Amino acid sequence: MNIAAFGTGVVGRTLAARLSELGHTVTVGTRDPEATLARTEPDRMSGETFAAWAQRHPGVGVATFADAAAGADVILNATNGGASLDVLALAGAANLAGKVIVDIANPLDFSKGMPPTLFVKDTDSLAEQLQRAYPDARVVKALNTLNAGLMADPSALSDPGTLFVAGDDADAKAVTTGLLRELGHADVIDLGDLTAARGTEMLLPIWLRLMGTLGTAAFNFKIVR
Amino acid sequence: MNIAAFGTGVVGRTLAARLSELGHTVTVGTRDPEATLARTEPDRMSGETFAAWAQRHPGVGVATFADAAAGADVILNATNGGASLDVLALAGAANLAGKVIVDIANPLDFSKGMPPTLFVKDTDSLAEQLQRAYPDARVVKALNTLNAGLMADPSALSDPGTLFVAGDDADAKAVTTGLLRELGHADVIDLGDLTAARGTEMLLPIWLRLMGTLGTAAFNFKIVR
Repeated sequence: MNIAAFGTGVVGRTLAARLSELGHTVTVGTRDPEATLARTEPDRMSGETFAAWAQRHPGVGVATFADAAAGADVILNATNGGASLDVLALAGAANLAGKVIVDIANPLDFSKGMPPTLFVKDTDSLAEQLQRAYPDARVVKALNTLNAGLMADPSALSDPGTLFVAGDDADAKAVTTGLLRELGHADVIDLGDLTAARGTEMLLPIWLRLMGTLGTAAFNFKIVR
Repeated sequence: MNIAAFGTGVVGRTLAARLSELGHTVTVGTRDPEATLARTEPDRMSGETFAAWAQRHPGVGVATFADAAAGADVILNATNGGASLDVLALAGAANLAGKVIVDIANPLDFSKGMPPTLFVKDTDSLAEQLQRAYPDARVVKALNTLNAGLMADPSALSDPGTLFVAGDDADAKAVTTGLLRELGHADVIDLGDLTAARGTEMLLPIWLRLMGTLGTAAFNFKIVR
């Protein structure tokens, strides 16, 4: 499958590397590929520059959001939630039409300090905002409820837990669920239409608190039933 | 232990019955005990009148909120979230001072139709509202993340999952955790101070969606790590 990963942070990099390993054609989308590759400051989370990462992953392409999207079957939105609408605008509506957009971002608002609040909550969601802005795209909310390492490979947990998908297009959810299974996520619950993204985005406050309490981001939600 | 269960709905009844079975002295608190026992309409969830339930549980007392609170070590707030502040006012600040209040209620707002929204979210919580109103009480948020049957006895699930406690008083959290373990909850995570109640109350939107999707309320969150 041809996959565009929007976002050059740890989530974008980790998923791009793993999906490329699994045999997919993956292109990281960024605002200005030359500028991204020229950055000398390391990523805040991984401590590695994008150029060093790209050199370690020669099979992963780097392109503008528009070019990455143009050739993609599936677009992973691994950007900051506050920047996601701007990024999709740079990709262009024509390049998004018909595409499956897996929205991994969370509507985190850091403007009032830590912990962040959510800029949309139980009457709207970031995923719905993206879908309304690009009605011809097929947005699926997924993967926003665990950390990058576990998204890409949950085998570090003896029990990988549950992932959730929500979206208005059944085929797009099936494509997304297929990719999640390839990554090792056996338990995927389809929560229904895209309004269910409100519920998964609202997991972030307890996720952040659990990370602090447990002293690790290596955990996941599981629905026992 | 002397326990007051505030609320005559399914949550109050189920916990009162189970804690009484476990050997605690339990009194259900209600606005007007005579009126509650005279009600002829059955509970919406259980289909049983309170009087019929009380007859089946002769060991459980029924008293006003104030009288139930006066003798209690622990008060379970199993009222509707929108009514909780009014109920605590009826109990009276003097009867709440020093008491452990286990706040099981959720800040559900049904005024805009279904699904309900939350009347406080990531900048406040119902539990914090109760604590601010009664600073001498010791509020612990717990048990608000699963249905009444599983609260009282999680053995219906082969894996009972995780419960959360949050509160500002370490001793009150220890008392609450002890009661949870008596009920059969082996995995209890202490999320820290009472502001963590925001995160557990914000689990309600996905809980409600999961109930619809799974077609049952017999599920729980588990934190796999």
